[in-house]
Amino acid sequence: MRPRINCISLPVESLEKSLEFYRYGIGLPTDGIDDIPPDDDHLALLLEGGLYLVLLQRNGFSDVTKLAKSTTASAGSSECILTYFASSKDEVDSILHRGANHGGIAQDSPTQEDWGYCGYIKDPDDHLWEIMYNPAMNE
Amino acid sequence: MRPRINCISLPVESLEKSLEFYRYGIGLPTDGIDDIPPDDDHLALLLEGGLYLVLLQRNGFSDVTKLAKSTTASAGSSECILTYFASSKDEVDSILHRGANHGGIAQDSPTQEDWGYCGYIKDPDDHLWEIMYNPAMNE
Repeated sequence: MRPRINCISLPVESLEKSLEFYRYGIGLPTDGIDDIPPDDDHLALLLEGGLYLVLLQRNGFSDVTKLAKSTTASAGSSECILTYFASSKDEVDSILHRGANHGGIAQDSPTQEDWGYCGYIKDPDDHLWEIMYNPAMNE
Repeated sequence: MRPRINCISLPVESLEKSLEFYRYGIGLPTDGIDDIPPDDDHLALLLEGGLYLVLLQRNGFSDVTKLAKSTTASAGSSECILTYFASSKDEVDSILHRGANHGGIAQDSPTQEDWGYCGYIKDPDDHLWEIMYNPAMNE
């Protein structure tokens, strides 16, 4: 096995709300995605490193977990945290602010820790993003 | 924001079991990780594309979700699916076989679909991997 993950798939209720958040809120690339056809069940966003973030309607996601003899986690609880390393405190603030204006729920304010600056935002389906700036990573 | 995810963090009960599964079961790189010091609370595996897979002890994971005003999903349910594109049906079979021999739980057998060949395996904490071979992706 090559040491890679090709896709991360997350269950969502509304592709429209997800597109709003990921396109305008945190600004991921959505090239080639216009309106969402009514029979579409997912969005696939291609990120740096060749990783796809797949937002899959909850029914379709549950079809997969059933096949795999698992169950879909209830909305509002977190099994994974997606972390982004920002290049400045300003970038952390800006992502949280824009995200909250496009359907996300940001923590009240980021916190200054010994090692850096960090805030959290949940997407419209409560998937948790950690947005951090650690100066040691930018040296 | 650059279009990237730097880390995916998952909650685990035992770092030893996770290391066994990820090192020997599905063969991710664990360079520099020898024994796990008793006070360590995570493993960070660097994958292709610069993505870290972080296996974080459940208590530490829950400290983060509390900060972010979320809760940790109960073990055994899936909020995310991690997908790997294999290069052949044999590779799919081999990953599932090795993974099951090192603490994972594989689906009984992969299935042949119109588009390709696919199987599922859960890591020791029930995090779901989808291992697929789609010939169209290797053309």
